Order: sequence, then C-alpha cells, then structure tokens
Amino acid sequence: MDTLYFAPGTCSLAVHIALEEVGAPFQAVRVDLAHGQQRGADYLALNPKGRVPLLLTAQGPLTETPALLLYVAQRFPQAGLAPLDDAFTLARIQAFNSYLCSTVHVAHAHGKRGSRWVDADDTAAIEAMRRKVPHSYGECFELIERELLQGPWVMGEHYTIADPYLFTLAGWLESDGVDPSHLPKVLAHRQRMAERPAVQRALARVQLG
Amino acid sequence: MDTLYFAPGTCSLAVHIALEEVGAPFQAVRVDLAHGQQRGADYLALNPKGRVPLLLTAQGPLTETPALLLYVAQRFPQAGLAPLDDAFTLARIQAFNSYLCSTVHVAHAHGKRGSRWVDADDTAAIEAMRRKVPHSYGECFELIERELLQGPWVMGEHYTIADPYLFTLAGWLESDGVDPSHLPKVLAHRQRMAERPAVQRALARVQLG
Ligand SMILES: N[C@@H](CCC(=O)N[C@@H](CS)C(=O)NCC(=O)O)C(=O)O
Ligand SMILES: N[C@@H](CCC(=O)N[C@@H](CS)C(=O)NCC(=O)O)C(=O)O
Repeated sequence: MDTLYFAPGTCSLAVHIALEEVGAPFQAVRVDLAHGQQRGADYLALNPKGRVPLLLTAQGPLTETPALLLYVAQRFPQAGLAPLDDAFTLARIQAFNSYLCSTVHVAHAHGKRGSRWVDADDTAAIEAMRRKVPHSYGECFELIERELLQGPWVMGEHYTIADPYLFTLAGWLESDGVDPSHLPKVLAHRQRMAERPAVQRALARVQLG
Repeated sequence: MDTLYFAPGTCSLAVHIALEEVGAPFQAVRVDLAHGQQRGADYLALNPKGRVPLLLTAQGPLTETPALLLYVAQRFPQAGLAPLDDAFTLARIQAFNSYLCSTVHVAHAHGKRGSRWVDADDTAAIEAMRRKVPHSYGECFELIERELLQGPWVMGEHYTIADPYLFTLAGWLESDGVDPSHLPKVLAHRQRMAERPAVQRALARVQLG
C-alpha cells in the first residue's frame, strides 16, 4: 500500500484528494512541518528535498504535486482523471498544473518561506516579499478566473487532476490577503469541489492527521 | 506545422532541443523579451501569461516547459523520449522536470525578475534577492548532483525529456555565480549534451533567431 506523507494546509491536499477520488488504498502519514520534521534525517532519507507531498510506493518514493497527480491518474485509469492518450488535452492539463506549481504556489510561498530567496536575517526583504503576496497571488487568480478555468471544472465538462490542485491553492486566497469576491468562477469551483465526497474524506483525514 | 515561440538564453531551449531530437517539423519565432514583446497585445492573445516558451499547435496554444516536453514525447513516441506506459518511471521524470520548473528555474528568476515578488521600486529587496541566487541556485544543483542525476543521462541509461531541460538550466550556472567545479556529474552531462547533433541544431537556430 502506498503511503502519502502530508501536512495540513499544504499542497499535499491535492494528491490526498486525487487518491480518494480513485479509491486507492493508501496510508497517510503526517509530517510535522512546524517542528522541522521535514528537515530531519529520517525524512530526508525518503525525500532529500525536505518537502511534502511525498508518496512512498512499492517501487520507491515519488515527489512533486504535478507528477504525483499524473501518476495517480495513470495508475487508476478507470477513474478517468486525465485523458492519457490525448496528447493535446493532457498537455493543457499539465500546463495548468505546472502553472499552479511554478507560479501560483511560488507566489504564495513568498509569504512564509521568504528565506529561501534572501538571507534569513534580512527582515526588511522578507517583509517586502510578504507584503506583495496579496497582489501577486491575486494576479495569478485573476488569470485563472479570466483565461484558464473553463467551468464547471477546470477543463470544462470533465473533472480531472487539475481540479483538486486548483481547489487546494484556492483555499489559501483569504489567508493570503486576496479578496475572492472578484473571482466568482473560482469561488463556484471551490464550492463545487467542497461538495464532492472524496474531497470531504480527504479533508476529514487531514484533520484527524 | 507547430510554431515554437522562444527567446535566446531562456528555458525555451529545452523544448527547442526536444523538437530537434524527435525530428518534428516546426517553425521557431523569436520573442523580443528585452523590448517587452511578451507583454504586447499580439503575444498576450496567444499566451496571456506573457512568457516563453509557447508552442502553437494546430489544436491551439500550449505553454509550460514540463507540459511541452511531455507533449513532444507523446506526439513522437517512436523517439522514445519518455516511458509513456510506465507510470512510476514517468512520474520520476515528471518529478525531476517539475523540480526544475518550480524550484530551480524559480531560484534563477530571482536574479533578474525580482519585481515579481516585491514592489518594483524596492531596490534593496530586489538586490537582496539577486545576492542570494548563487547560494540558492547552487544548492539546487548540489541536490541534483548528489541525489537526482543518475548518469550518463538524468534517468540513467535512457536519454529522456529530463535531459534537455537539465542542460538548459545548467547553462546558467556560471552567469548565476555558481562555481560548477564541485558539480562534476552536472558538468559531464552538459558536455555530453553539447555533443548531440540535436542540441547543436537547436543552439544554431536560437543563434540565428
Ligand atoms: N514543487 C513542490 C513544492 C512542495 C512544497 O513546497 N511543499 C511545502 C508545503 S506546501 C513544504 O513542504 N514546505 C516545507 C518547507 O519548506 O520546509 C510540489 O509541488 O510538490
Ligand atoms: N513555468 C514556465 C516559466 C516560463 C518563464 O518564466 N519564461 C521566462 C524565460 S526563462 C520568460 O518568458 N520571461 C519573460 C518575462 O518574465 O517577462 C515554464 O516553465 O515554461
């Protein structure tokens, strides 16, 4: 059985939801980020990047949210979470998830993890990054609202691996200082997601942790 | 015929090389980043993110380096650039490319594009980011050297879509202030890549631009 290493409030929720959607048997192990467990020797032996999510499979460890989401879709093709043989549509989904990973998530990370990109004791620069998050995170979601989210699901009529990932990052809007009232499609998508049993199961498991 | 929108010295080189590797017929159109063509109305109509690479296909536009690389592999399966039916190995490749996209490339971008993450007139914070690049970019490559690059190619014996992407980002080491002499595997990989005819063709086309 695969083991998902996760932490509440992080991007690992996307993979958690995908595993619930396909009905995969899996264990969930909570990593205590606040106490730095991700930088301990035991965890680094599994994932030298020191981050979540990590999926420990019978074949070995796997990381990176977009890669894990595609892996889940490919391992459980009957769930239909990605059009595996349609290169163009698959690339659209992967492009959406890659944008979330490399641009949207990264904009968010400047709020709490500024010391990745400036010296840890440069409080002015860290504070400058923190101040920009509502703007930069908001701008990403305006692009999603205007250009990318087709509705009712990200890719239109078909629910795919793009949906749990968007739901996860849309959950950070308010705490990142973005007023979502100008993002009606994103809000409706978030609501629609919250009604799915798989999402509710994933959230409940994260809560129990 | 597909059209690749590219700019010299950018991550678009990875897709350029992949297209050359598979022998795809394609046009290459240079985007003038220095003069802000990526933010002009014509380009934004094709790619509202205002970035390269963009691949304009008969079915529509595609963006994001990891998505494009997988697309090329899937459209030209006979070239064998990715094990499309091996979910675990494909996820390892996608995880490598996602790390390059979301962490390594992003570390680099803090050198020239700091105003994405702080106010454009906060010169102290922008300078603080610039100063950290040799450290943060170097740290990424230490992880690649130690943990990820199997050799001779990223994934071992098989050349895949991870290789042109690593080659592209490894090309920025010196200009990002990283001394590559402690990265012998990365250097050997870069050399090995430079000897491939497809890489030489891509570099020549970028040059003519
Ligand atoms: N590109 C990775 C990013 C993973 C990541 O940054 N995870 C965060 C939580 S959202 C983390 O583990 N942070 C802990 C730390 O930085 O110490 C992915 O998409 O999976
Ligand atoms: N996540 C995107 C990033 C694309 C990107 O940032 N491209 C840079 C060049 S390496 C760019 O177009 N920059 C122009 C700008 O920021 O104005 C990808 O991997 O394709």
